[in-house]
Amino acid sequence: MLSEMEKSLENMVEVYHRYSLLKGNNHALYKDDFKKLVTTECPHYMKKKNVETMFKELDINQDKAINFEEYLVLVVKMGVAAHADSHKE
Amino acid sequence: MLSEMEKSLENMVEVYHRYSLLKGNNHALYKDDFKKLVTTECPHYMKKKNVETMFKELDINQDKAINFEEYLVLVVKMGVAAHADSHKE
Repeated sequence: MLSEMEKSLENMVEVYHRYSLLKGNNHALYKDDFKKLVTTECPHYMKKKNVETMFKELDINQDKAINFEEYLVLVVKMGVAAHADSHKE
Repeated sequence: MLSEMEKSLENMVEVYHRYSLLKGNNHALYKDDFKKLVTTECPHYMKKKNVETMFKELDINQDKAINFEEYLVLVVKMGVAAHADSHKE
């Protein structure tokens, strides 16, 4: 059986694959796939963010796609924001 | 309403606080709290890891406690492992 934390992590991986498998390289979120992911999965976080800027920021190796490791940077950024929010409530 | 990914992130924050609030500084996971967290929440990930070594590795500022940002490094490490596992199945 998976713990709560393990389930959450598995879910993060599932979310990535849901969009990265849409086309081309299985481990590439192209800009339009990335846009779909953040619009659907991170609506609150993206409210004050620009998708283009975020894509450029995450695409560390500048190959015009977000690989899984680059996606984890988004997870960390959202984690920091979720933590800050938890203390606002 | 929260998306799946947002729920997972909120859960990561909740898990951290569950152990960090046990005593002392609210944002410090002391070694025994950390041990409780990883034993309960990351049983699969910790199978081949040593808690002492992991604690030292995550305690980047060497203050003998894991703050939220340091905890996120554990989240990334577990994310990489969960991703690798997802391709083994």
